[in-house]
Amino acid sequence: MSRPRVAIIVTGSELVRGERPDANGPFLARESVAHGLHPARIVIVGDAAEDLRRALGGALDADLVLTSGGLGPTHDDRTVEVVAEVTGRELRVDAGLVAEIEDVSRRIAERLRRPYADFEAGVRKQATVPDGALVVGLAGTAPGLALEHESAVVVVLPGPPGELRRLWEAARQVAPVRRVLERARPPGRHELRVFGASESAVARALAEAGGDGDGVEATICARDYEIHVDLLFDDAAAPRADALADELAERLAPYVFAREARSVEEVVLALCRARGLTLATAESCTGGLVAARLTEVPGASDVLLGGVVAYADSLKAVELGVPQELLARHGAVSAEVAAAMARGACRRLGADVAVAVTGIAGPGGGTDEKPVGLVHLHVSAPDGERSSRLELHGDRGAVRRRAAVTALHLVRRLLEQPVDVTLPAHGRRTPA
Amino acid sequence: MSRPRVAIIVTGSELVRGERPDANGPFLARESVAHGLHPARIVIVGDAAEDLRRALGGALDADLVLTSGGLGPTHDDRTVEVVAEVTGRELRVDAGLVAEIEDVSRRIAERLRRPYADFEAGVRKQATVPDGALVVGLAGTAPGLALEHESAVVVVLPGPPGELRRLWEAARQVAPVRRVLERARPPGRHELRVFGASESAVARALAEAGGDGDGVEATICARDYEIHVDLLFDDAAAPRADALADELAERLAPYVFAREARSVEEVVLALCRARGLTLATAESCTGGLVAARLTEVPGASDVLLGGVVAYADSLKAVELGVPQELLARHGAVSAEVAAAMARGACRRLGADVAVAVTGIAGPGGGTDEKPVGLVHLHVSAPDGERSSRLELHGDRGAVRRRAAVTALHLVRRLLEQPVDVTLPAHGRRTPA
Repeated sequence: MSRPRVAIIVTGSELVRGERPDANGPFLARESVAHGLHPARIVIVGDAAEDLRRALGGALDADLVLTSGGLGPTHDDRTVEVVAEVTGRELRVDAGLVAEIEDVSRRIAERLRRPYADFEAGVRKQATVPDGALVVGLAGTAPGLALEHESAVVVVLPGPPGELRRLWEAARQVAPVRRVLERARPPGRHELRVFGASESAVARALAEAGGDGDGVEATICARDYEIHVDLLFDDAAAPRADALADELAERLAPYVFAREARSVEEVVLALCRARGLTLATAESCTGGLVAARLTEVPGASDVLLGGVVAYADSLKAVELGVPQELLARHGAVSAEVAAAMARGACRRLGADVAVAVTGIAGPGGGTDEKPVGLVHLHVSAPDGERSSRLELHGDRGAVRRRAAVTALHLVRRLLEQPVDVTLPAHGRRTPA
Repeated sequence: MSRPRVAIIVTGSELVRGERPDANGPFLARESVAHGLHPARIVIVGDAAEDLRRALGGALDADLVLTSGGLGPTHDDRTVEVVAEVTGRELRVDAGLVAEIEDVSRRIAERLRRPYADFEAGVRKQATVPDGALVVGLAGTAPGLALEHESAVVVVLPGPPGELRRLWEAARQVAPVRRVLERARPPGRHELRVFGASESAVARALAEAGGDGDGVEATICARDYEIHVDLLFDDAAAPRADALADELAERLAPYVFAREARSVEEVVLALCRARGLTLATAESCTGGLVAARLTEVPGASDVLLGGVVAYADSLKAVELGVPQELLARHGAVSAEVAAAMARGACRRLGADVAVAVTGIAGPGGGTDEKPVGLVHLHVSAPDGERSSRLELHGDRGAVRRRAAVTALHLVRRLLEQPVDVTLPAHGRRTPA
């Protein structure tokens, strides 16, 4: 696949120091891929002119250069000036732009009750653009720009993510950018999401199914026990990509939970919705993470009633009806208490399905018998129950995330299995 | 401040396509800053040799080049070969390394029940290193390397974050890396965290307090209504940095919630702990986010009893004792219901302090009277109560995150205020 190449340059001192993760580079990269372009690199630099100059200068052999940030009114905001320098253009004050930015600034001055004179230098600075640059729109007082330089098109976008997205939308409509996009063809895409298989098992299945290449590009991305496989393909390779996706899904069948970009919480909510079941959570060590993931999905409220974060044992008893005697005999982190939490959530909250999580997230609280990372899960549903004992690795955050995602998959597996009418409700336990 | 310069190069197709956020670049950047080095840029490239060659070739004028990833056993893993190429070194098979990697591989083969022959080519490939490179350690079967090239030291690290961190630790002990670190001085650091002030108000306060420069570098980082200010300084600038931090804290006094890297949930838990108070949550639209943030803090269990995610109105009634009549009259998103949720959580869960959140996270569910983004908060504590009505902007995720962080700050503000003994408990409402 020969695709137009994109270089992405992100500026921000806090980003190059690692104080905040950069969202704009990955966003522009995903947009590039979706339009059939090849993101060749993402470069993050601070606000030193020399660092930005080198990054931009080294990017001009790409077909499209996308920059984020450095468009503000102060002297630290240097993107426009450096773009002019590396493309050998004069800077000029754009009279129309002065009027537009002045208008915005006067409104800001009024709102802040500050004299407009405070803004005047900034307005002039932000209305100064390289000769021949097209203004694609304003983000606050900062213009987004597009300009051609030899075989490259440079698009200058603001740093705030919402504004960047809006002006990228606008930039795609201007002629030079449109011409680059017309040379690309958005690729086809197959997605496959699996849970419970190792990354190397997925890689092996892919290789055995024929592997990528010949117009199909595969990426395998592992995260907290889920593995997402993405196949991007050219038009000509569509039959091969379809066959590869089917073959891969078959080889990984026991582990596949979605053949599209769908999260496990969406799958769980859809499974409940299809059967008219309500859902509740009963969480100890995950402390609300399972409920928070489920409620992140718009429209979750038609399935999810809510849940109890029973962090203290007193709440396990009071809110979920876990017998004190059970807590005393087996301890809060036990299969017995997990089962009592799930059943209590069904009974007390009036839910058809409930998932319970109890474990030791660490760093303290572990013993030889019950080490940090030990987690018990239990799901109760009208057709039966499932439980699982996990020994998770990682720090507190990882143990909590992994327990939460595994709990959601346990619900999914129970609801996906064919209804077995020979077993009494709430009378069955299957190891996950 | 003239500090040794660091260039960070991260490889990974899924990273350059924006499919997964990169954690290694920011980690190495923070490490660089902490050791007094200047991270000049972070470059993310895929596994195309040409892209990696350009990134590495362009980095050799830095004092320290740190690479992450591309050390695996397959032909797509090209970092070592490209490092050899750009530094003009021969590749050679290291016999000692062959023995070590073979040992690890034989154990893996045994565990996977596969013939060792499957691994042999990979072992040879991973034991092939540039002439003169020092092996700093093994990550699985991948060696981390350090080598000197003219005035630069190149450190080659693996991609999996845990392994990268471990081998970075080891790399800091080898002589060439140590020599770079010895030329740097770890900077001093002051941190200030504020809530409720605008980013521009913080920038203005910084400027009015004297601004950065002269050996002090400031970064201002805004995130969901919190702003974190970091001052890094040279030894010589310590008095100026101390004065600047004090002056800034004074100017922003009503908004400052920490003068160190401390989260609001840590502050809230500490305030409760200091007064022997227990805490509970009652969440609707945030669906467990407040509880999840509090339980992310190790040791939260001595303060936090837990909480109720009362997503459905039935749970607000059953678990929190909110009267049906109140729900019918005012609707679930109302100041009255928020107050009843908080008081119900205190009463039903036996907590001293409870925080309630009810709102419309969107995208659906808004009306003219109660638009998406409307959120009511309420905190009940032994000394009194506080409530707040918010109209939040952003998508569903942003509304939820912002509601959660504002709820935590509402608890903090109530607990920070001097105890006013003239008012009866639970009888006071102050706008936030």
